[in-house]
Amino acid sequence: MSTTTQTYLNAIANRRTIYNLTDALPQNVSVSDIQAVVQSIIKNTPTALNSQENRAIIVTGNTHKKIWNSVINAIPGENGKKRPTSARDEAYGCVIFFTEQNTIKKFQKDYPAAASAFPVAASATTGAVQINSWTALETMGLGCHLQHYNDAVRAALGDLVPESWTVNSQLCFGSQVIPAGDKTFIDNPVNIYN
Amino acid sequence: MSTTTQTYLNAIANRRTIYNLTDALPQNVSVSDIQAVVQSIIKNTPTALNSQENRAIIVTGNTHKKIWNSVINAIPGENGKKRPTSARDEAYGCVIFFTEQNTIKKFQKDYPAAASAFPVAASATTGAVQINSWTALETMGLGCHLQHYNDAVRAALGDLVPESWTVNSQLCFGSQVIPAGDKTFIDNPVNIYN
Repeated sequence: MSTTTQTYLNAIANRRTIYNLTDALPQNVSVSDIQAVVQSIIKNTPTALNSQENRAIIVTGNTHKKIWNSVINAIPGENGKKRPTSARDEAYGCVIFFTEQNTIKKFQKDYPAAASAFPVAASATTGAVQINSWTALETMGLGCHLQHYNDAVRAALGDLVPESWTVNSQLCFGSQVIPAGDKTFIDNPVNIYN
Repeated sequence: MSTTTQTYLNAIANRRTIYNLTDALPQNVSVSDIQAVVQSIIKNTPTALNSQENRAIIVTGNTHKKIWNSVINAIPGENGKKRPTSARDEAYGCVIFFTEQNTIKKFQKDYPAAASAFPVAASATTGAVQINSWTALETMGLGCHLQHYNDAVRAALGDLVPESWTVNSQLCFGSQVIPAGDKTFIDNPVNIYN
């Protein structure tokens, strides 16, 4: 197997959920670096008929804290507030991923025979963007966890992004304190049929 | 940026739709190599609560031809038969991606408060598996295109795979004849808010 293929597979295997973060960036990593990486992934991840409906923003500092405060306030009960409180206080920032719904509607109108396929394809492409951004950030030495407080985050964003951008997830990032533990895997062979 | 991060981003950027294929594998690539790569990606792509609902098989030879013959026969009109005919005759084989629905149902039952989240997460994780398998195969020198003849392929598979495996896509692979042309991109900045 080529070195490139192996490096690619290793990057995917090294991506893990890291909840224990401090709100700092590793040495030699800037928010601009994170921006460039997410930008490259969004640009080059395929979309149905090159529809390009993936969107993202990066929030840090006060904006990050304001958004997570809104999420914390939107959740009833102390137990449910723990994770967004950790996101607010222990993550340096987060990447918020969106799907631009007007694009989906336009392609559904332009290609009515494939109308039902565009939302399915949009779910697949945002999945690749989210998970690959996570992987890329881990190759940069960051720790990350992916959250889905989508309704509360959408409400907190207000008019910071267009109304047509629906929220898919929040990739919280910072410096890793404790590495991930072991992960269990089912037996899941990929069989070949000739 | 580290070499690993750059290699990872380059792999993603080099993945393209290649329709002009011959039904051969590049030198030094075997079906077992493809199997190992897809296996690694399925194993290491995250799923909600580690639910592990991604499945895949690889078909080549007679099985590949039989499945695409069924698809060709299921499609009315000569024009619609062109792409599956090309898949049958010009691809060496394909990776078929599935979601195991009994797993989703079990997690929905075990975590009723998050029931609606599992199908959404399943769409995201299969997207990453499909697109990253495509990327990995391109790092191995293969050309690929991703098809979605899901109903016809599911019917053609019969009891080769369990009934609970729903088909997401078919990644057709072979040797590249003509490289991809230029691709156009919208202006899609990832803004930072502090």
